[in-house]
Amino acid sequence: MTFSPAQQPDFTRALDARLTGFLDEQLATVRAISPDAAELLVSIADLTRGGKRLRPLFAFWGAQAAGGEVSEDSIVGLGAGLELFQAAALIHDDIIDHSDTRRGAPSVHRRFEATHRAGGWDLDPADFGIASAVLAGDLALSLSEQAFAASAPLPRTRQIFDAMRLQVMAGQYLDVLEEQIGGARDPERAVEAARTVVRFKSAKYSVENPVLLGAAQAGASEELLRGLSAFALPLGEAFQLRDDELGVFGDPETTGKPAGDDLREGKRTVLVALTLRRADAAGRMALLDVLGDPRLDEAGVHAAREAMITSGARAEHEGIIDQLTRTAFEALEALAIPDAAREGLRAAGLAAVKRRA
Amino acid sequence: MTFSPAQQPDFTRALDARLTGFLDEQLATVRAISPDAAELLVSIADLTRGGKRLRPLFAFWGAQAAGGEVSEDSIVGLGAGLELFQAAALIHDDIIDHSDTRRGAPSVHRRFEATHRAGGWDLDPADFGIASAVLAGDLALSLSEQAFAASAPLPRTRQIFDAMRLQVMAGQYLDVLEEQIGGARDPERAVEAARTVVRFKSAKYSVENPVLLGAAQAGASEELLRGLSAFALPLGEAFQLRDDELGVFGDPETTGKPAGDDLREGKRTVLVALTLRRADAAGRMALLDVLGDPRLDEAGVHAAREAMITSGARAEHEGIIDQLTRTAFEALEALAIPDAAREGLRAAGLAAVKRRA
Repeated sequence: MTFSPAQQPDFTRALDARLTGFLDEQLATVRAISPDAAELLVSIADLTRGGKRLRPLFAFWGAQAAGGEVSEDSIVGLGAGLELFQAAALIHDDIIDHSDTRRGAPSVHRRFEATHRAGGWDLDPADFGIASAVLAGDLALSLSEQAFAASAPLPRTRQIFDAMRLQVMAGQYLDVLEEQIGGARDPERAVEAARTVVRFKSAKYSVENPVLLGAAQAGASEELLRGLSAFALPLGEAFQLRDDELGVFGDPETTGKPAGDDLREGKRTVLVALTLRRADAAGRMALLDVLGDPRLDEAGVHAAREAMITSGARAEHEGIIDQLTRTAFEALEALAIPDAAREGLRAAGLAAVKRRA
Repeated sequence: MTFSPAQQPDFTRALDARLTGFLDEQLATVRAISPDAAELLVSIADLTRGGKRLRPLFAFWGAQAAGGEVSEDSIVGLGAGLELFQAAALIHDDIIDHSDTRRGAPSVHRRFEATHRAGGWDLDPADFGIASAVLAGDLALSLSEQAFAASAPLPRTRQIFDAMRLQVMAGQYLDVLEEQIGGARDPERAVEAARTVVRFKSAKYSVENPVLLGAAQAGASEELLRGLSAFALPLGEAFQLRDDELGVFGDPETTGKPAGDDLREGKRTVLVALTLRRADAAGRMALLDVLGDPRLDEAGVHAAREAMITSGARAEHEGIIDQLTRTAFEALEALAIPDAAREGLRAAGLAAVKRRA
């Protein structure tokens, strides 16, 4: 059994069912070890339920682009592996970025911290929160691999999956490193460094690799994989730049995260690097003043926004997003793939660059 | 090509070469992303070099017990997967336990923290250390899986590997949880809870599962796997109890960790639980006074030791280790396996219960 393009809703339903069934099974195993350990798995299951399935959808359409010859079982397993990997990345990212909320709920370390406080337990609640979330993320990462391996990946698919993990982790490290050393960089070089982070931490991971994984599993040629990259990589960059922009200018109701969190954390986004390169001394000062300040308030966020707008950085950033999006969709048009796959990739791509996922 | 029992030194050499080659290859990939990210991989490679290869050796002898019919490539890949998994576990464990040293060198989070300080970078050195070590551990976990998958695991072998990861992570969580809630438990129940932690966090992971992985990969029957568990699980428990005892009474020169770190961290080991059950009010007070005190000094460690000795808990603990060791080696004698494999498992088992690994 293979999915046809028209069965995309069936795919999403099958994916949800697979994730629920798989995590229920794991929960039973954990409970057999000790009921006390169940919470570790429940935290993963709760987080996973809230996902928008962006990466599995890209994998689905990648498979369709390559002709769709992949069993339902395999493409659903691949999607489950991607969603669980994303859960792992989010849990650990939220520790690293000191984020209190995720998908509109407390982040996993905050959740365990709250359980500790509510129980009036010994030792330190925040410490317990971090320890538990480190382990929950590790478990999600292991389960991701387990789900992926169960999808009977072809050697080329496994190669892409392995490369993806390495790229994400190296990209995340560069992201953190840039917060520490970005300020000492030449402004031009800082923009480049920020774009490298976007490419490896996000663009390849959120869009390019999911598309390639689906396509490879359906037996795509190397030529088709290259063609799909020409669409998916710039699209993924545009996706992350939009995400960064929403992190400063977006509505917390829509993004599910407080506005300005990236500024508080000191993230050296492309938008920040462009602002520092373009702004006058006063604008630079206004931004540097708030960058990495954990107590940053509304007024500070407003000042940073002003610096981004008046320097012309926000407009330049928007121009880069437009250019990347155009490049991506032109590459999509040029691909020799079934029309239904092209339409599916177009719709998924448009959804990705228009809103936060 | 398969290894004969006499080729155990060749196996160890091949394992070291595989780990070095594999990590060099990954380092080249990371450098191509950005030279700035290289440190993430170097930290894993440095840590991995220091391992005693305890788990791969158990896997080697497990395979020999099942007849040894497994390719060199496969058993070496399995060993590499185990060593990289251990690196991941240690990196994250040291964050969770606030450990400053590992294998006689700074723990990975302390290493990144020191790099930050030396460079006089922006933001917080300790925060950067933890963020980097979270990512280094994630990468080691991913690479572990990559090495394991490349060993062409049989379905039964993969099943054991998956179970192992879940057990370790659940066990580690129970270990942390017990520090927070163990004090509120009935003393009898506390001993049981501590033994559950030992079983899942350590015994299964350090001894039982490595033996089973090697045996399964060599095609062992379910009956043989059960027989090997009857040896390996109690041996693994004895191994961890010895480790816990050395954590309080051992020579830091030998253990590579400061004496009393487990006490400082508030670990609810079996030895601690036994002491709390057996000691008089003064002894219990003396131990509870130091448990979880990060500023615990030599005098405090001495007081805890006294309480463990005078209550008779240390002797009872030693008795449990003896009993478990006896049970393990009796089970080993009863196994219908080649003599060379029995000798190998005996030697590896004796080494494990006699020193910290």
